[in-house]
Amino acid sequence: MTGPVTAETLPDRMTAIAITEPGGPRVLKPERRPLPQLRAGEILIHVRAAGVNRPDVMQRKGAYPAPPGASDLPGLEVSGTVAALGEGAERWRIGMDVCALTPGGGYAEYVAVHETNALPVPHGFTFTEAAALPETFFTVWHNVFERGALKPGEFLLVHGGSSGIGTTAIQLATQLGSKVIVTAGSADKCAACEKLGAVRAINYRMEDFVAVVKEVTEGHGADVILDMIAGDYVAKNYHAAAVDGRIVQIATQGGAVASTDFARLMMKRLTHTGSTLRPRSVEFKGAIASALETNAWPLLAERRIAPVMDMIFPLTEAWRAHERMEEGEHIGKIVLDVA
Amino acid sequence: MTGPVTAETLPDRMTAIAITEPGGPRVLKPERRPLPQLRAGEILIHVRAAGVNRPDVMQRKGAYPAPPGASDLPGLEVSGTVAALGEGAERWRIGMDVCALTPGGGYAEYVAVHETNALPVPHGFTFTEAAALPETFFTVWHNVFERGALKPGEFLLVHGGSSGIGTTAIQLATQLGSKVIVTAGSADKCAACEKLGAVRAINYRMEDFVAVVKEVTEGHGADVILDMIAGDYVAKNYHAAAVDGRIVQIATQGGAVASTDFARLMMKRLTHTGSTLRPRSVEFKGAIASALETNAWPLLAERRIAPVMDMIFPLTEAWRAHERMEEGEHIGKIVLDVA
Repeated sequence: MTGPVTAETLPDRMTAIAITEPGGPRVLKPERRPLPQLRAGEILIHVRAAGVNRPDVMQRKGAYPAPPGASDLPGLEVSGTVAALGEGAERWRIGMDVCALTPGGGYAEYVAVHETNALPVPHGFTFTEAAALPETFFTVWHNVFERGALKPGEFLLVHGGSSGIGTTAIQLATQLGSKVIVTAGSADKCAACEKLGAVRAINYRMEDFVAVVKEVTEGHGADVILDMIAGDYVAKNYHAAAVDGRIVQIATQGGAVASTDFARLMMKRLTHTGSTLRPRSVEFKGAIASALETNAWPLLAERRIAPVMDMIFPLTEAWRAHERMEEGEHIGKIVLDVA
Repeated sequence: MTGPVTAETLPDRMTAIAITEPGGPRVLKPERRPLPQLRAGEILIHVRAAGVNRPDVMQRKGAYPAPPGASDLPGLEVSGTVAALGEGAERWRIGMDVCALTPGGGYAEYVAVHETNALPVPHGFTFTEAAALPETFFTVWHNVFERGALKPGEFLLVHGGSSGIGTTAIQLATQLGSKVIVTAGSADKCAACEKLGAVRAINYRMEDFVAVVKEVTEGHGADVILDMIAGDYVAKNYHAAAVDGRIVQIATQGGAVASTDFARLMMKRLTHTGSTLRPRSVEFKGAIASALETNAWPLLAERRIAPVMDMIFPLTEAWRAHERMEEGEHIGKIVLDVA
């Protein structure tokens, strides 16, 4: 399909990837579904590419149900072309190219999003590149720069440096003047992280990250730690953090329940916080979109930062994309090609 | 001794309470010591009363050593009369009545403090009342209002509601428009807390504080939790906290190492932080003093809040004051009468 789709030419039904039951990657199957209904302030995006994220995998397994009122279809970010405007939506016009954070439903030919949660496709970007941006950029912006209050000159430690989140955090924080240290699980992943600007990538299978962080920071420690592991990393993070350090939890892949020394949190005046993006309001996400358009989109347009692309799969083979993510060998973003 | 002491009449030596060795209350013994030397910006206070605090007990046991450069004598707060001015000290004049946070050395007839860390004795206050103010007011102001960012209308949960910290937190937060819930260990202590303004005091020996907090807040939870317990309270605090709640750790009396669910911290977007007051810079403490003079001292002068006084012991019987604190039966502040 080429050219803009106007409201007149919209089909009745679309292809979407449904979670037919909780389970392995193969429960993801193409289905024919009616197009989503637009609510006030929403736009309908004719999807060209959809990003794949770990919460999609959790949702597929039944561990992370869709919030009330959201689509039951997986998919938290897309790029595409504006195909219809809901009541009161006025920022975009039919035919404009956008990328957007979605409340779910991104693994589909059409998805409805609030107009404030969409951003322009950065100049010169392909649709697959643009679909790789929203989830990691919104997450990194809020957690590292807002919640973690990372400042220029400070040290940021990112666990899972070669993930979509990690590669975004490395680039954005480096461009904005911080020094980024990451952990990753192989020499290849470490090399990729250092190529993106990390001052030091730690192979956690070979090295003790607490000791390396202390060494690289000359005893200061990490001012902000972006952690998706928890488990035994919690106590280690408290050791690796600087006095007045901020630790931001965005997942608990290594186990949610963990033991640590809260006297250390107190004596070092640490701040341990965390958040999840999906349940936040459209207004909250709109405010992040605004901050990103000001602070990050110019860096993208100049290609000073760019998403790290791992592999692209056709929409109907979404199960292969999930297999790829669960194998853990990917570096950067996995994306579905929709149209 | 009556009337102001000028630089001309200062004695060579003073009586002070030393920690003769780490141990029980009886290791606290009167000694004759030279007067402290004044550094630039400091004032010498002729002490009239000295507050007793739990960190003094920890220090006596050898668990909380004095920071580098600080007096080895215990005592973190005093009231008294300005007896000498160090180089550049210009806020106070000889003979003025002040109360002050000290870097240690408060259990003595004279103590040196930076002039910015002193505040006027509130109008109408006795010296014993004034000596009971600094440690709890500085601690509560920083941890509840700055670090915890408590706002009017929000719910504050204070563990140890009948302690010096607790009784100060109840009054200050209530006066500034918050609703305070506390835990305490007896019916008498609970009654005292409710008399001070707590909307609900929970006898933790009889009731589950998580359930009561949920009930009192109609499911909302506590917006800020001031905790000196840690141990199994950490996991319970994560349950009792509201979404976007802040938990501030100011001691770990129930055990520093504890296990909790960090997925809950993340999903509820909690902020768990903490601090200790003693190692902070004089500038930092001076900034708190300023904030207190603006926000809390007028409430004290109007007697809308007042320290809750438990018992007063003579300086030379400081060991009895520590016994009293360790028995845990006190409600409010224990103070030493110095002159």
